[in-house]
Order: sequence, then structure tokens, then C-alpha cells
Amino acid sequence: MTLIPASSDFSTRLAAQLPENTLSGAQAGYLEEPRGRFFGAGGILARPRNAAEVATILRACNEARVAVVPYGGGTGLVGAQVMPEGPTPVILSLERMKAVRAIYPLENVLVAEAGCILADVQAAAAEAERLFPLSLGAEGSARIGGNLATNAGGVNVLRYGNARDLCLGLEAVLPNGEIWNGLTRLRKDNTGYDLRNLLVGSEGTLGVITAAALKLYPRPRSVGTAMMVVTSPQDALELLALAREMAGESISAFELLHGQGLRFVRDRLPDVRLPLNDIPDWSVLIELGMSKAADAALEALFEAALEVRLVSDGVIAQSDGQRSELWGLREHIPIANKAVGSVASHDISLPLGVVPDFIATADARVAALGPFRVNCFGHLGDGNLHYNVFPPEGESREAYNDRRHAVSDAIYDLVHSFGGSFSAEHGVGRLKVADLQKFGDPTRLAAMRAIKAALDPHGIMNPGAVL
Amino acid sequence: MTLIPASSDFSTRLAAQLPENTLSGAQAGYLEEPRGRFFGAGGILARPRNAAEVATILRACNEARVAVVPYGGGTGLVGAQVMPEGPTPVILSLERMKAVRAIYPLENVLVAEAGCILADVQAAAAEAERLFPLSLGAEGSARIGGNLATNAGGVNVLRYGNARDLCLGLEAVLPNGEIWNGLTRLRKDNTGYDLRNLLVGSEGTLGVITAAALKLYPRPRSVGTAMMVVTSPQDALELLALAREMAGESISAFELLHGQGLRFVRDRLPDVRLPLNDIPDWSVLIELGMSKAADAALEALFEAALEVRLVSDGVIAQSDGQRSELWGLREHIPIANKAVGSVASHDISLPLGVVPDFIATADARVAALGPFRVNCFGHLGDGNLHYNVFPPEGESREAYNDRRHAVSDAIYDLVHSFGGSFSAEHGVGRLKVADLQKFGDPTRLAAMRAIKAALDPHGIMNPGAVL
Repeated sequence: MTLIPASSDFSTRLAAQLPENTLSGAQAGYLEEPRGRFFGAGGILARPRNAAEVATILRACNEARVAVVPYGGGTGLVGAQVMPEGPTPVILSLERMKAVRAIYPLENVLVAEAGCILADVQAAAAEAERLFPLSLGAEGSARIGGNLATNAGGVNVLRYGNARDLCLGLEAVLPNGEIWNGLTRLRKDNTGYDLRNLLVGSEGTLGVITAAALKLYPRPRSVGTAMMVVTSPQDALELLALAREMAGESISAFELLHGQGLRFVRDRLPDVRLPLNDIPDWSVLIELGMSKAADAALEALFEAALEVRLVSDGVIAQSDGQRSELWGLREHIPIANKAVGSVASHDISLPLGVVPDFIATADARVAALGPFRVNCFGHLGDGNLHYNVFPPEGESREAYNDRRHAVSDAIYDLVHSFGGSFSAEHGVGRLKVADLQKFGDPTRLAAMRAIKAALDPHGIMNPGAVL
Repeated sequence: MTLIPASSDFSTRLAAQLPENTLSGAQAGYLEEPRGRFFGAGGILARPRNAAEVATILRACNEARVAVVPYGGGTGLVGAQVMPEGPTPVILSLERMKAVRAIYPLENVLVAEAGCILADVQAAAAEAERLFPLSLGAEGSARIGGNLATNAGGVNVLRYGNARDLCLGLEAVLPNGEIWNGLTRLRKDNTGYDLRNLLVGSEGTLGVITAAALKLYPRPRSVGTAMMVVTSPQDALELLALAREMAGESISAFELLHGQGLRFVRDRLPDVRLPLNDIPDWSVLIELGMSKAADAALEALFEAALEVRLVSDGVIAQSDGQRSELWGLREHIPIANKAVGSVASHDISLPLGVVPDFIATADARVAALGPFRVNCFGHLGDGNLHYNVFPPEGESREAYNDRRHAVSDAIYDLVHSFGGSFSAEHGVGRLKVADLQKFGDPTRLAAMRAIKAALDPHGIMNPGAVL
């Protein structure tokens, strides 16, 4: 499959089929990504206003064999949103399609266009006294279409699932420019293959999501948040089991925090208040959402855990301000990480039961490779860890660039041997294409390639990403 | 694509690659389905013991262009399990692969082979003090592989989702005989296209599921069940909204019952006790599962609903025996339906908000077509109704055979105009192939055909089903 650069001639012809100002040159902002590892080489920026315009663009690109790079909020961490090499593409930004089209409180359904900022979806749900539970660090700029295309995770997956689980229906444009009108509000619809879940998580390689029907939930009336100090990841897991026994499905979040991350926050972000005087090696951030008395439930959990020595200290938020403070601490960990500068970061998942063993083994392997500092934190309730490796105090990441691959190989090999995944919530993008080839099941990879060829025979959609 | 009949020669060659007694002739039981509308024309029965044997069978069939009909518990209601015409197929029954391979209580995961009876999965979960929430009438004979292949629904979808939502990973054999080892226990794994959800719900047309990693849940400690009398479907919906407000996500089931169904039970199954003296036109069966005091929550809901006149009467189960009685009544409705004999049955779903309007309109349309009796009941919480049409008292369904299609067309056209689905939980099978062509989105249908051709280029898998 040979792709053709998007020439000015192509651009002129395409522009003639679209309203004025739909196309322009791609400015720098569309050619970079947050980690600074991939830079786009330029392109035509298309900013359509509706699915019909997206269809026009895709049809033209498909006919002319021009590459299309769908662009959401640009917050992805694996480089799916920029195309660093190959013939000049059309960068298709959904930013003008940002309406909340409808909300159905009785049905717990909201229909949003792909370019709607995640925080705006949350706010629209809240205004209708409902909860849209997808919540992640970049929610102020990430767009819901991108969240779906990457099957985003975040802090509430434990209770409400990934982006995939929050989607009832899609409107999407397939690579041939045909529009799929699949914006159903149905909870049950068993009429053939699951095209929705095929597009969700395909990172723009099978089509462009233009709108989605999303699931809403009742807002828990009583929310309780606590930080509890544990001795080890094993104790954190046992605390999770105890919490499940006592609070069932009302656990909204269960985050593991590592002392290294808190020390990074203390050193790099001195304005962020730490809730405990001493920085514990391991602690967890727990949130319960219940119909009432979540604080009392947290008190009871803390008391019960204290009695069996699963926890040694803790703080239960006494106000919304304190709750924000605890979450603020959690959210500042990645920011502090960035300020320190990691040698290698790993967004991994593991079967819950093997997490403690994995952490111990991984720490030993990393230590054997150099004097690194490890900050291992994340969504323990989902078995999803961010296992990030940093240079020693006072040294820069650049000094260890030559060991980055050795570190990542060691981590990913170990994750694989424990039955885990090398990408829990960030996706494959361009960063992990080789890892997918290495660790992916060969039968599944062959099926993925067959599906890609069937739906995008000319390979125009986000070339270089995923496969 | 021309398929070849499974000859005795083919059978002999295939048998030589398999352990003794893997192949035999297909007895009558494998050639019929519960509604008696489709009858298989014969075939070679294959009963493999593991994925490798399934792979051997599929590879041979694919090379020889012999059709394969996967067979679970045989309880499907749309004829996906029997092939009434075309070249003699291999009927591939998973009945010998019925082990629960492993259970991980800490992780809330159970790994079962495809031939495991649904009730046995439930029992294995219960033994580990966990809940496997998929629950449906045929659970004593349906097999989990079939439940997944058809994305089965049932009474707990409102809270726990369809079979799809309860599956973490699959082991499956693709049409070319390659085994996909995808039995992950991970809650998060964003590494490419969602092959799992593509196989789930594909009704045996894209491959054969041989085992699955399934999600378990905590068993609610306190379960409360009640039947409440409402005036109309609209009031039932408002009662659901009130219940959600008061009990959040602890509503495990919310079933709408129609007086016609209860009268059928009274007339045809006199041993089934009716909980109320008079048969109400409309009532709902509600179940709450909570950490404690579910009965008190039901009392509170009933009182609150009584105050605003949403309910007029009701009964709250005071013991497990009474709970079983209420559920027994619900489960006997389809049995009584069968005894009466419907002219046409419709497993439909609708956006929740339009359900009352739909029922009123549909009743009028059906009445215009003849003196029918309607029993409209089902999983109201999911917008999933079983809208079943019966002959007048004292007359037989056969007398109205000539109007069956007119009735179904009227219902399905109406469902479509309300944004609903002509198959909520039973699938497409062979019964609804024409409906899928008529009502399916053309872009999605084309994508489905492309995917089918990509994964099963010779069209050996369950020919005639779905597409």
C-alpha cells in the first residue's frame, strides 16, 4: 500500500468540497505530544463541523491514498496523535464538534460529539444530577472521542469500567467515508458484530468516532476519601479485600501510592500539602461512594484494618476541601514525576494476585541495572501500575538514556511472564508497536491485521500506529 | 464460496487426526431447537476435549471447505445452533470441555471451559463466596461458551451487564484453526483491537470460544425481593427512577410483569402460587442486593412510592422461600406462554424513556390486526421487553399463522421508529437474518461482511447465521 503526500493540489480540491476555513496548515501544536518523543512532520489540518464533513474528508483521502491522523485533545502518551514520518497526512481534529447533543436523565444517557472536552461531559452530567465517571488527569483538555479511541482508564475504572464500558453507541465514519449511524441509547442490542468495541480502542486506525452515546450513573450522595498507610503492596491488597468485604461495590477508587512519588512531590512541588507528617513507604488512597454515611464506612474500615494491623496510620477527609487535597496529592504525582524526569515509564497491568510478587521482583531487576529510583504507583484496584524508573538523586535522565531500553525490556519481559500487559490504559500508539509485535498473541495479531485490511484496505487511517 | 458436504471420507480422515470417539453421527437432539422452527439436516458430531482438538477440526474443515456449526447447550431461541439447509456440516459440541479450570477469589476471576453449564459456573462462584451474576431461565442447560457467543442477557443485566460485560478474556479457535490464547485475568489491557468483544455475540460465525476468564462479584449480603403493583408502564418507569434515587446501584433486577402473563400462569400452571389475590394489570418484580438491610430499603421504597401513588399494593418476600416463590412466578411466565402458544414473540429493546409510549402504540397496532392477546413483560430496567402476541382465548396459534408476519412486521417497524432493536438479548441466529438486513445500518452491515470475509474467507463458520 503506497500512500501519497497530501499535496496543495489535493488540498485545493478537497477544500472545494467543504465550507470555508475547514482546512488550513497544521500549526506546531498539532505536531507534538506531551512526552516530547514524537514530532509530526507537518500536514493539512482539517477541522470539520459534523459527520458529513468528516465523511467528505475521509472519502477524498481514501480515493487519493492520503493518510489521515485523527486528533482529539492531543493528551495521549504513546504518540498515536502525531505521525513523524511518511507522506504528509491530513490531521483531522474534532475540536469543532464539541456539543453535548442531548441528555436523558431518566435513561442515564448523554450524547456528546467527539470533540467535547471530557470535563465538559462531566459537567453536563453533573448539571443533570448524574455522574459521568470517566476521570483522569488530562480531563481538562482530553476530548471524549480520543478517550474512546484509546479506551481511556483513570481513577474510577475499578467501579465503573474503562471508557469502553461507558459507551452505548457510536456515530463514526469508516475509512471509505461511509457514516455509521450507531448512536443507540439501548442497554441491550444483540444484532450482530460489535463494531462499537472494535472502534473503541483502535486508536484511529479503523475509522473516526464523531459522536457517542455515553452511560451516566447516579451521583453517590455520600462520598468518603481517605489515605491509609500500609506496610507493603501485599497489605494494600489485603486492605482492598477487606474493603470489598465491608463496602462491596461502593469502592470508587483504590490507588496505591509510593513514598518515592510523595518525596518527588515534596521536593519539586513544595506548595502541595502532604497530609501526613512522615512520608510512608506505601499508602493507599481510597474513595467510597454510597447512598449515605461513606465517612462512617471509612472509619469502620480503618478501625477493622488497624485491628488486624493492615494499616498503621491514616487520614479521612473531613470536608470537600480535604478531599480535594488528597486527590490533589494523587494528581500531582505525575507532575512531579515529569519535573524529575524518568528514565523509563511503564503503564502496566497484572493479575491482582501477583502484584506484590511482581513489584518485589521488578525492584530487584531494576536495581541490578543501575542505581535507579523507582516510583511505583497507580490504580491498584484494577491491577494497573505505573512503574516509573528515575535516575539517582542529583543526576539527570539523559545520563541513563543508554539503559532505557534495558530497563524497559526487563520490566516488560517480567510483566509478560506474570501474565500482565505492557499497556494497561495508555494504548499502543507509535511508542509500543514493537512491544505489541513482541508480546502480542500471534493469532490475535494476524486477526487484527486481517481486520485492518478489511476495513481500511488502503491503509490511510493513522499509519504507523498500533500495527 | 462453495462449501462441500462433510463426507464419510472426510470424516474418516479427520477421525484419524483425533482421539477415538471424538466423531460420531449427529443424533436428533443436536438437530432441533427449543421453538421447533429449525431442524438440522444431519451432520458429523464432533465432541473435542480441548482447544487443540477444536483447532484440528477447524483446520480440517477450513481446508476441505466443510461447514462448522458450533453447539453449546442448544437453548438459543433464534436457531443459531442448527443448520437446516446446505452441505452436511460438522456439528461441534463443546460438551466435553466443561471444567472450571481455576478460580481466583481475591481477583474476582473464574476461568471456565466453554462447555461448562451456566449453573455450574454460578455454583463454583458461590462456593468461593462470590457471585457470577449471569442468570437466565435456561441456566440449568445453557453452556457458558454459548452464553458468550450469543452475548446472553437475563435478569441481572441492569446491575451487572450482559455476558459481554462479564468476560475478561477468551481462549478461542479462529476459522483457520489457529488458537488465540487470550485468557487474561486483566481488568485493563489496551493493546490493540478488541477481538474478545468481536467474538462475543458473533454467534459462532467468526470462531469457536473454547474457554473464558469471567468476572466475579461480591455476593450481596442482604437481598430483598418484592412485587409491587403499578397502574401503568409509565408508573413502573417512575418507580424505577425513585428506586434508583433511593437505592442507587443496588437494584439487581427490575422486571415488568403484565396481567396477561399472570393469567396464563394461573390458567396453565395451577400449581404456581400467585402472591396477590387479584391479578394486577401491571406489576414489577424488584430485587435489591446490599451490604445490609435490603428488606428495610424495600419497605422504604414501597412507602415512598405509596405516598406519591406510584404503587397501590405489593408484597415483600419475608424469607428465602417467598423470594423463590416470587422469582418462580417470573420464571413460569415463559413456560405458561409456551403452553398457550404465541402467534409471534418479540425480544425487543427500546430507549427507556419511550417504553410507555411504545407499549400503548404497539397495543393499538396489534389490536388493529386481530383479536389478539398481548403479554408484554421483561427486563424493564434495561428497556428490554418480551412483547408476545397470542391468539384469543379458546383459539389456537395455528389459526393465526397467516398473520404472524404482519404482526411481527408491525412490531419491528414500530420498534425501529422508536430507536429500538429487534433483538435485545436473543441474537440474530437464523430467525432474524432478514430483519438485520432490513433494519441494520448499511455501513455497519458492510463492515460486518468485510470482517466476516477477513476472518472466515471460506465461510465455513455457521453458514446462514447472522449474515
